[in-house]
Amino acid sequence: MSDRIANEALRQKVMSADDAASLIHDGAQIGFGGFTGSGYPKEFPPALAKRIKAAHEKGEHFTVNAFTGASTAPELDGELAGVDGIGLRSPYQSDPVMRAKINDGTSYYADIHLSQFGMQIRQGFFGNLDFAVIEATKITADGNVIPTSSVGNNAVYVEKADKIIIEVNDWQSEDLEGMHDIYYGFALPPNRVPIPITHPGDRIGETYLRVPQNKVVAIIETHDPDRNSPFKPIDEDSHKIAGYLLDFYANEVEHGRMPKNLLPLQSGVGNIPNAVLDGLLHSDLDHLTSYTEVIQDGMVDLIDAGKVDVASATAFSLSPDYAHKMNENAAFYRNHIILRPQEISNHPEVIRRLGVLGANGMIEADIYGNVNSTHVMGSRMMNGVGGSGDFTRNAFISAFVSPSTAKGGKISAIVPMVSHVDHTEHDTMVIITEQGIADLRGLAPRQRAPKIIDNCAHPDYRAALHDYYDRALRDCKFKQTPHLLDEAYAFHRRFLETGTMQA
Amino acid sequence: MSDRIANEALRQKVMSADDAASLIHDGAQIGFGGFTGSGYPKEFPPALAKRIKAAHEKGEHFTVNAFTGASTAPELDGELAGVDGIGLRSPYQSDPVMRAKINDGTSYYADIHLSQFGMQIRQGFFGNLDFAVIEATKITADGNVIPTSSVGNNAVYVEKADKIIIEVNDWQSEDLEGMHDIYYGFALPPNRVPIPITHPGDRIGETYLRVPQNKVVAIIETHDPDRNSPFKPIDEDSHKIAGYLLDFYANEVEHGRMPKNLLPLQSGVGNIPNAVLDGLLHSDLDHLTSYTEVIQDGMVDLIDAGKVDVASATAFSLSPDYAHKMNENAAFYRNHIILRPQEISNHPEVIRRLGVLGANGMIEADIYGNVNSTHVMGSRMMNGVGGSGDFTRNAFISAFVSPSTAKGGKISAIVPMVSHVDHTEHDTMVIITEQGIADLRGLAPRQRAPKIIDNCAHPDYRAALHDYYDRALRDCKFKQTPHLLDEAYAFHRRFLETGTMQA
Repeated sequence: MSDRIANEALRQKVMSADDAASLIHDGAQIGFGGFTGSGYPKEFPPALAKRIKAAHEKGEHFTVNAFTGASTAPELDGELAGVDGIGLRSPYQSDPVMRAKINDGTSYYADIHLSQFGMQIRQGFFGNLDFAVIEATKITADGNVIPTSSVGNNAVYVEKADKIIIEVNDWQSEDLEGMHDIYYGFALPPNRVPIPITHPGDRIGETYLRVPQNKVVAIIETHDPDRNSPFKPIDEDSHKIAGYLLDFYANEVEHGRMPKNLLPLQSGVGNIPNAVLDGLLHSDLDHLTSYTEVIQDGMVDLIDAGKVDVASATAFSLSPDYAHKMNENAAFYRNHIILRPQEISNHPEVIRRLGVLGANGMIEADIYGNVNSTHVMGSRMMNGVGGSGDFTRNAFISAFVSPSTAKGGKISAIVPMVSHVDHTEHDTMVIITEQGIADLRGLAPRQRAPKIIDNCAHPDYRAALHDYYDRALRDCKFKQTPHLLDEAYAFHRRFLETGTMQA
Repeated sequence: MSDRIANEALRQKVMSADDAASLIHDGAQIGFGGFTGSGYPKEFPPALAKRIKAAHEKGEHFTVNAFTGASTAPELDGELAGVDGIGLRSPYQSDPVMRAKINDGTSYYADIHLSQFGMQIRQGFFGNLDFAVIEATKITADGNVIPTSSVGNNAVYVEKADKIIIEVNDWQSEDLEGMHDIYYGFALPPNRVPIPITHPGDRIGETYLRVPQNKVVAIIETHDPDRNSPFKPIDEDSHKIAGYLLDFYANEVEHGRMPKNLLPLQSGVGNIPNAVLDGLLHSDLDHLTSYTEVIQDGMVDLIDAGKVDVASATAFSLSPDYAHKMNENAAFYRNHIILRPQEISNHPEVIRRLGVLGANGMIEADIYGNVNSTHVMGSRMMNGVGGSGDFTRNAFISAFVSPSTAKGGKISAIVPMVSHVDHTEHDTMVIITEQGIADLRGLAPRQRAPKIIDNCAHPDYRAALHDYYDRALRDCKFKQTPHLLDEAYAFHRRFLETGTMQA
């Protein structure tokens, strides 16, 4: 047995994933570890999927409600969704199989702000939590549990669940111990207190999860890597978008609205955020900090280069090479990286206090600055709102970034009216595409529309957008936010009918 | 001269409103006091309007950008808008003349969360503030300024403006001194610190505004009442809605999800909030608290009855009788009421920490729980988002309340898709109409739709809503949030064409 389980009592609970899966009942509510493909349980979910499939073959009803930190991996969402095993999913997902089952109506999906899900579990709004299933890198002799490459909602799940299942994964570095900061100051109102973070590097909790031993029903030993996907090389559009954002920051510094070393950066996952981090790497900025959800490759480069002093997040999202580097050098990186519960990494109170610089991707924005982050053509769920609302509503600067078109130009990211709203006109400060940047601060809707169309829309769509706006302005009796309700979705309807938004 | 101006140096600056208005230039950015028709300057704005009108008659350009706490009164918004004197208005208004000028395109209107406007002024996002024009009940010998019936953004305006004009109004009670709590702990990031409020009754600031004397350019003596409008008697629908809300709270208490004396109440302005307060008055609850924007009559009754220990707000919105009572008994009420800057009364950090019970009005909600608080038929601005976003996103319970129909049944408050989104599906927990209540916590969109239609829509509209939802569910290929984009606004388009949403 692995020497990573140092507690005697807990060593007695080691069993196979199949045996652990046999403990689960139809309708169980399970809080899984896992955030952006890191630190999720890897062998229990496939075993549970096998059990569910067998039940279905016997004609029995068997689904579970699956809660996580955020997105997981094929071994979790893919396996469970693949056997039609998920009744309700929350708060975030990005797996192709899970997404298909949500969109074909097999599974329900409650799309919740990532800072709020754990809080709502604490408040009892999702009912009783039957199981917590989490991953650990080791269990100390005292029975303390050291998390792995994500913290997510592990702490609240362990606290609230009736029963706990732990996967101890020796692929994860033991040197991660000391990187985590598990805050235990949560209370329910009227007893909540201020969260004592005033700098991204502040540590306010413990380096381990408190796990009541009497609730632990199974421990599974695993040896499997996280879902680490290689990053694509940064494309030209992403470089352009990153350039506009960094120029905007530089201009804010020049006008005295921001300190020289900026403010704590929020950095999403993907090509554009990676290009921003790359841009920072090649800038003359230093003593940067980050307060964000996820540590990706570019942030590791910035730490290596001595440009980022400290980065606070709740999870890694690394390529295989960088995950290897992290595992080899965790003892170094834990001096510069803090992994926190997502209730803290995404907490409005802290984001607003620190003055985080938010930059989030989007599916589409409309000419007045409303943003759709979740639904293609208004109905089809992509991933979920994630932390974009937590950061956007509370950031010092709230920017949205996207290429101006998708599907080879057939979809415009700037539309007359978004087909779903995740971020309102009240929250969007800046929109950036490879075409340019629209600074919307202090502007009314009629001031925003021409700016967004001219600066951000692709030239192929500008005339149609101007035409819509001009006629709305002329024909609409009320001109705060001129819209023609019979045409507001003409772009989307054309795409659904003809496969392109272009006329 | 009034003995309310005890400071010698400032007594030298007393002048007429006309003389003060002559100090203002075209294009000036002015931060006015005033919140829900309380504590706004009363004689300066009409004098400024006269000056602007005279300039216009001479063919000169003259507008000002008018910022406030929230809504003001005919003397301010009405007068200035009436002479086409406002270029940009922010962050909230409700005056009929102002509203008309926004909707006919004369004035721009930037509709900003009430907690954020002062912060954005501090951050420099609205440019330089030329003037602060505020109301005081008195000025002490030391030159400290005691606010009146609202605090709003007075502190930030006085701090950031180049020049300050003060109206000293002897209609306001001198006993208001001690009721205000002006927080001076604001800083810009990276130097922001936790706001040290853990109970609605906590006092964290000073009882007066710090006013740099060298910036004061005029003092005007006034004697005018606030815009206090009588409340209408509570109608039956409001009683019903209040009943559903209070039953919901009682059920939460019963299930252990809320303390017996509830959590701090947010209470909007108007008929339904008044009915809720009336319901509380006739309940057996006590030791209630409130953390809200506005103190209205019902809250005063609850304090008189000994049921509310303390109410925190940023302004009064009282009927004439209750305003009289407040002025007569301010020395008593200041033991139970705290008036704070709206940056604090509406701060997400404090609202989330305290676990405020939010209940806000709406124009319409859709079958998936998105809420429109601002735009009639998608284009016509009513008042603004106000504090509804601050409270809804951060409250322990986020409820929206409205009669199920408006305009004698011609408008349904429940529609297939809202024509403007101020609060997203991610934020709405409960919807209540006189028809009933839909508890949406933990539900996916397809679980919400039937519940909202059956529980909240008026019977006259239920069949049409079900028909839309059933066909969307059947015909839409992607079923997370089924919508038919060519029909989503059929209700609204019918109203615009025929004057009723009914087929």
